[in-house]
Amino acid sequence: MNLQQRLAQGKHTQFMEAHNGLSAKIVEQVGFEAIWASGLSMSAAMGLSDRNEASWSQVINALEQMADNTHIPILVDGDSGFGNYLNVIRFVKKLKQINIFAMCIEDKMFPKINSFIGENQPLAPISEFCNKIRAAKDTGGEQFTVVARIEALISGRSMDEALERAEAYKEAGADAILIHSKKKDAGEVFTFSERWNGKLPLFAVPTKYYKTEYQEFVNHGVSNLIWANHLIRSSVRSMRETAQTIFNEKSLINIEKNVSTLDELFSLTSERYMDGLESKYNN
Amino acid sequence: MNLQQRLAQGKHTQFMEAHNGLSAKIVEQVGFEAIWASGLSMSAAMGLSDRNEASWSQVINALEQMADNTHIPILVDGDSGFGNYLNVIRFVKKLKQINIFAMCIEDKMFPKINSFIGENQPLAPISEFCNKIRAAKDTGGEQFTVVARIEALISGRSMDEALERAEAYKEAGADAILIHSKKKDAGEVFTFSERWNGKLPLFAVPTKYYKTEYQEFVNHGVSNLIWANHLIRSSVRSMRETAQTIFNEKSLINIEKNVSTLDELFSLTSERYMDGLESKYNN
Amino acid sequence: MNLQQRLAQGKHTQFMEAHNGLSAKIVEQVGFEAIWASGLSMSAAMGLSDRNEASWSQVINALEQMADNTHIPILVDGDSGFGNYLNVIRFVKKLKQINIFAMCIEDKMFPKINSFIGENQPLAPISEFCNKIRAAKDTGGEQFTVVARIEALISGRSMDEALERAEAYKEAGADAILIHSKKKDAGEVFTFSERWNGKLPLFAVPTKYYKTEYQEFVNHGVSNLIWANHLIRSSVRSMRETAQTIFNEKSLINIEKNVSTLDELFSLTSERYMDGLESKYNN
Amino acid sequence: MNLQQRLAQGKHTQFMEAHNGLSAKIVEQVGFEAIWASGLSMSAAMGLSDRNEASWSQVINALEQMADNTHIPILVDGDSGFGNYLNVIRFVKKLKQINIFAMCIEDKMFPKINSFIGENQPLAPISEFCNKIRAAKDTGGEQFTVVARIEALISGRSMDEALERAEAYKEAGADAILIHSKKKDAGEVFTFSERWNGKLPLFAVPTKYYKTEYQEFVNHGVSNLIWANHLIRSSVRSMRETAQTIFNEKSLINIEKNVSTLDELFSLTSERYMDGLESKYNN
Repeated sequence: MNLQQRLAQGKHTQFMEAHNGLSAKIVEQVGFEAIWASGLSMSAAMGLSDRNEASWSQVINALEQMADNTHIPILVDGDSGFGNYLNVIRFVKKLKQINIFAMCIEDKMFPKINSFIGENQPLAPISEFCNKIRAAKDTGGEQFTVVARIEALISGRSMDEALERAEAYKEAGADAILIHSKKKDAGEVFTFSERWNGKLPLFAVPTKYYKTEYQEFVNHGVSNLIWANHLIRSSVRSMRETAQTIFNEKSLINIEKNVSTLDELFSLTSERYMDGLESKYNN
Repeated sequence: MNLQQRLAQGKHTQFMEAHNGLSAKIVEQVGFEAIWASGLSMSAAMGLSDRNEASWSQVINALEQMADNTHIPILVDGDSGFGNYLNVIRFVKKLKQINIFAMCIEDKMFPKINSFIGENQPLAPISEFCNKIRAAKDTGGEQFTVVARIEALISGRSMDEALERAEAYKEAGADAILIHSKKKDAGEVFTFSERWNGKLPLFAVPTKYYKTEYQEFVNHGVSNLIWANHLIRSSVRSMRETAQTIFNEKSLINIEKNVSTLDELFSLTSERYMDGLESKYNN
Repeated sequence: MNLQQRLAQGKHTQFMEAHNGLSAKIVEQVGFEAIWASGLSMSAAMGLSDRNEASWSQVINALEQMADNTHIPILVDGDSGFGNYLNVIRFVKKLKQINIFAMCIEDKMFPKINSFIGENQPLAPISEFCNKIRAAKDTGGEQFTVVARIEALISGRSMDEALERAEAYKEAGADAILIHSKKKDAGEVFTFSERWNGKLPLFAVPTKYYKTEYQEFVNHGVSNLIWANHLIRSSVRSMRETAQTIFNEKSLINIEKNVSTLDELFSLTSERYMDGLESKYNN
Repeated sequence: MNLQQRLAQGKHTQFMEAHNGLSAKIVEQVGFEAIWASGLSMSAAMGLSDRNEASWSQVINALEQMADNTHIPILVDGDSGFGNYLNVIRFVKKLKQINIFAMCIEDKMFPKINSFIGENQPLAPISEFCNKIRAAKDTGGEQFTVVARIEALISGRSMDEALERAEAYKEAGADAILIHSKKKDAGEVFTFSERWNGKLPLFAVPTKYYKTEYQEFVNHGVSNLIWANHLIRSSVRSMRETAQTIFNEKSLINIEKNVSTLDELFSLTSERYMDGLESKYNN
């Protein structure tokens, strides 16, 4: 079932962050219905800040590895669209070519800065952002999902403005609204949901209000949850610990049991399938 | 101190695997003297098998991210050289352009298959492999290090052949010899070292004989150790556990304390440095 | 009509060389039924020799520009397949992703050297090359065309070997045979055609026997002609003359009338279409 | 002599457009002192409009081919800088990595539109553009040249504003000023030069006022001339004619004498040098 269908049927969907072919495959194997291709984590994997240091085509390269290795829907974090409507059009064309049919864009300027850095980041004019939404929808076609991400609350604007923006983005053709918040609880997200009243499906990103229980989201009509950066943060923690242990002990003795086996890695990268090709074509 | 100097001075060096900008930065921060840019783990990160599915220029893209974000020497796993001497030349030229000055090449055919898969993989003719070594050295110049990796023992050939190959590779200009083994102990590596008698510095990769103590390597004259794939295997283990927990619990409550903080991630990706640029140039 | 259909119906087809998005568009506008994406000219455009200096993914980048800008079939010069069967599989997957459904592969080794350079270049063993054909066909699927290029005559082998290879390649699943020759007349091509007797459609590349009239090819049952490198050679001639004139005269006065107008260039790059997007989305 | 030195010494320099490795090599062979890596023609070669459809990293790929194959200075058309100061910084870092040490940036918005399309295109605020200049200079270092391109006259602004901008860009660190005009004669360029009075070296682009004699530029103190797109326009004209002739005549008989020989092409792509490598390393 593609994302467009899930949204249309009001399904609850959980999007787990991935940032390369390997992490995407893990997300799929664990059973998630969808992948969040995080701009922050794709950039971080490259060693870059979350400020559009990576070109859009470098992002496409990372996405291609993810899409080539999985079958579940990928929702791409398209940041602020990599420029204006024209850059959005080109990006969406390339997404479709690599079999990705869903993008989230946020109403900040280009280049963007990560939402959790600084205060009162400037927002895009509503009409300009609506042009991007229309361009994305027209280019993507029927099956292409556009999630409009509203940064108003995070940028210190009013709830009224957030709702006004949501209304405009809906008119422009957005398939869903992501209401972003950096509060420690989900209060303003739920207020937004109440006033929005289900005019389009809602997405939330509980990175800062991580203590909120799942059932609360359900009760408040937020049907799509993005676990936005936890696999890369998990890998940072474990890689640092592993590296530190090896550095200290100059030995793998205490490492082997705490890392995946080589066979597990080979299974993730299809080495056994490749053995079959070797038998078939190299005889 | 570059790698050429370390080898010349007989230093003991430990190479910790990295596969992208982020993991390379962690390796450097932890204090390692050098990075092993593993072909297996760079491929795996892309979701690809360790069989030269990634083109050499896709490998360069990954390496560029690593070199752009670190200052310690990077030893590149150049597999079997991506073709013949000509492909080696082009690869080395590009390595230098991204400020990488050390490559390991192995005496298997192109495309290669991971050494731990199957038995009796075919080896390159000695003269052909020597041509690659000479081409790499001539292209790389004085400061460029070429490590010749011998697959003879792993491919079921004799110790005599391994030594014969080492001798030929030394004559061709190799700066060091990597003697690979998939035995569960380091016996054949140490036998090789004894007979080799220090004619060039030796590298070992204790992936399979991981229980060998560091002091044993020192005692047997093996001065360079490659911890070849443990950061990516560490990340696989932790990402799978994190994804599984989130999937099961539909919640981040038990996750937050087990992953790196956002601030730690931002520190790795230089967000604070970027804040300084923002103040300086966006005023 | 795709290439598979043209071959099945015994159509006569002329493939005009292109090497980037611009030249491909010119080929289409002039009216040709198909494009020959020449390895020689794509490499030359990059400044590289015709010896697989460009990685297969760099070739894909050039092809993507061509396919994105045209609608007629593109027959890709896949050289010797960029490695073994496995590299062929990966290349074909990527071709399909960029909407290209036809590839020619030649029975030389990897890396290849241009056929008009040197003598007696080594050929691939028949069985190994058949593995590549099978892999390409299995990966490409029904609509994907594989043209098997025989280098036997050019490499000083006998007509019998050329025919033996053609037979084997047909058995392996090739959709057509390209019989290459560097003679100054088409004699050996026509002899091959006579003895081959139409078991599969034939391709010829009259670069060296350029004086042969079209009707002769028709009479001898060669239905597919590749004009293999004439656009890039045309551009070299004209760019050199234009550059020389400007260098000598330090002036454009005698240049303007001999080059395309800016409007013609803008027409090739869809600037007028883009103006329409600008009105639609940037208002 | 690098570009910085040429400017410092008040040399007259002619920059001939190139758009890929091949055309760059022709420019160098003909004897020009410098290359203009035109955004219009690099985009056009890819089949793209001159509106930042190509990502900055795709532009770097084209530039890399040019720089790898030539030794004379390359002045890169950096459009409006691919975003804000931060994107400029990243672009300049990558330029240096591929051995390019000069960039021109124009004071339009991102994405830009070709200067000869439409009227009254919006300009960047002066302070914002100065930030880009400062960022480029700080990142590029001593030897890196930044040419500030003023679009005021082309965008219907006053001569006073053009001069005010020039002054500000000089203060910000620009090494030279490019004063752009789309008039049919060089009048406004010369007026600007008179009022500017040599405070920094001047660049002109006589694409529209192509009838102006070289001596006039010299007399009016314009020491740097960019022949901005004439090689690609030359290639379009000739490729179209060649393709049309082959299409009409289904024959190469009238083509061979009008295109470069294969040997000339092989000479441009270093095939003979490669033969030497083949003898040296494949024996």
